[in-house]
Amino acid sequence: MSLIVVGSMAFDAIETPFGKVDKIVGGAATYVAYAAANFVKPVQQVSIVGYDFPTEEMEELKGRGVQLEGVEIIPDKKSFFWSGRYHEDMNSRDTLITDLNVLADFNPKVPDSYQDSEFLMLGNLAPAVQISVIKQMKKRPKLIAMDTMNFWMEIALPELQQLLTMVDVLMINDAEARQLTGQYSLVKAAKDILTMGPKYLVIKKGEHGALLFHGDSVFFAPALPLEDVFDPTGAGDTFAGGFMGYLAKTKDVSFDNMKTAIIVGSAMASFCVEKFGATRLKEINHQDIDARIRQFKELVNFDIELV
Amino acid sequence: MSLIVVGSMAFDAIETPFGKVDKIVGGAATYVAYAAANFVKPVQQVSIVGYDFPTEEMEELKGRGVQLEGVEIIPDKKSFFWSGRYHEDMNSRDTLITDLNVLADFNPKVPDSYQDSEFLMLGNLAPAVQISVIKQMKKRPKLIAMDTMNFWMEIALPELQQLLTMVDVLMINDAEARQLTGQYSLVKAAKDILTMGPKYLVIKKGEHGALLFHGDSVFFAPALPLEDVFDPTGAGDTFAGGFMGYLAKTKDVSFDNMKTAIIVGSAMASFCVEKFGATRLKEINHQDIDARIRQFKELVNFDIELV
Repeated sequence: MSLIVVGSMAFDAIETPFGKVDKIVGGAATYVAYAAANFVKPVQQVSIVGYDFPTEEMEELKGRGVQLEGVEIIPDKKSFFWSGRYHEDMNSRDTLITDLNVLADFNPKVPDSYQDSEFLMLGNLAPAVQISVIKQMKKRPKLIAMDTMNFWMEIALPELQQLLTMVDVLMINDAEARQLTGQYSLVKAAKDILTMGPKYLVIKKGEHGALLFHGDSVFFAPALPLEDVFDPTGAGDTFAGGFMGYLAKTKDVSFDNMKTAIIVGSAMASFCVEKFGATRLKEINHQDIDARIRQFKELVNFDIELV
Repeated sequence: MSLIVVGSMAFDAIETPFGKVDKIVGGAATYVAYAAANFVKPVQQVSIVGYDFPTEEMEELKGRGVQLEGVEIIPDKKSFFWSGRYHEDMNSRDTLITDLNVLADFNPKVPDSYQDSEFLMLGNLAPAVQISVIKQMKKRPKLIAMDTMNFWMEIALPELQQLLTMVDVLMINDAEARQLTGQYSLVKAAKDILTMGPKYLVIKKGEHGALLFHGDSVFFAPALPLEDVFDPTGAGDTFAGGFMGYLAKTKDVSFDNMKTAIIVGSAMASFCVEKFGATRLKEINHQDIDARIRQFKELVNFDIELV
């Protein structure tokens, strides 16, 4: 079983109350891949980078079972670069620089060797680009999940609405869910979104956890209470990687299994925020992940005899 | 088994995005009593009201097993009155009016008939007043829990610090935990607070749930995702009432049982916010409560075979 991951591979400059890095490897597809590779192999990457993207990072990914045939390397351009500064609460940030570079011309091609994949994760990109990937699949994957952002709701809403009819799972944050629907209540927003196409909706609330909606059912996964959130960059993509990686591993796309996948995603995200960039994701092993998932069980498990 | 509840009984004027009420019965002790009476009888109330507090409300409480011997009635003064307006997000509000009235002279007396009680809930009041209640108990209750607010941290910190050494459970919200410790991280704030006296700390996060800290252990209870939070007034006190009511009913003050009590408190609070004031709390029965607790189990229960 494999998982196709489409999205950016990039450099980030990040400033948090705890420190700063000038140039660290980032990008949605990078985080998704590092998280998912713990559960499913191969992860089949579709992305675009410039001449400056480190060979060692490519080797590191390959060593973890990430296939890079779908990653285009543009010899005379730079990789996508994002720079941001987090506020003290770590829930909000200012974008300082967005240099699209190679990403401006990203026209992803799904290699033939990826065509058998049954799981597809579309990282945040222009909706038209995400649509083009789905259309390239000769057989519709068993499960298509997507991320997006407020920017596309503002400048590409018709394409986004078309895309929503083509996917199974939408993963967005609380502010995006409110913007997409005009509903302040997340429960009402979820009801609206579930009429737009996706059968499953994940609303990410950062340090306040995540909600999974399906029909009239709802499931909640907390975020692990941490002493310090060191750097939230990539936490949402890492969450998506854990979620899709676990589903691809278990090949079970039922609501019950998605609950578990949400917990796995939350566990992976809780590692991601402990160090800058994907640093922590490269350090952990299966024992660490199992221990973290046990912590989530402890965090929410309770017994009751009804009153 | 009984539970002593100390706090205000009052009138509120409330404005939310959904409507307004000019004068509705409120007060911390009122909410605590309505919630706790579902689990423990008698609830032994200690409060103060003016000539204008409705006889029918007193009768309603009595009918639910709430003893009012400790409620002083001042014949020539008005009851405490609070008026506030909620913002659209319902997590923040502006206080418009605070008329202390009888509460300015509140010097609570614990009746002899309450002295056997093993559970004591101190609603938000001046720390010196809360201390005076503890000192009146001839035998220290098995479990003393308290609420407080930012105002007392600003004008009565020494008394508050003394009080903290005398109680078992502190229940405050996230902003108050941060203010009390100067720590932004709630995990760090909790560590600090657990050195100040209380062995158990509950941090209420409104729509984002509640955390229970004890030693190095932490438990998280979500808030139920609701279509509309109609009126959050009293939700924290209702939470406290469910929590203490359940502990008094089960007579078990272990950490494991407190986890369950936090869920019960969250369930009660989820009813409270559905209508203005304590309206909804007066309508529900044990079947409603059981069904709501089942919803909480559904909301967080997941299965996993570790990876």
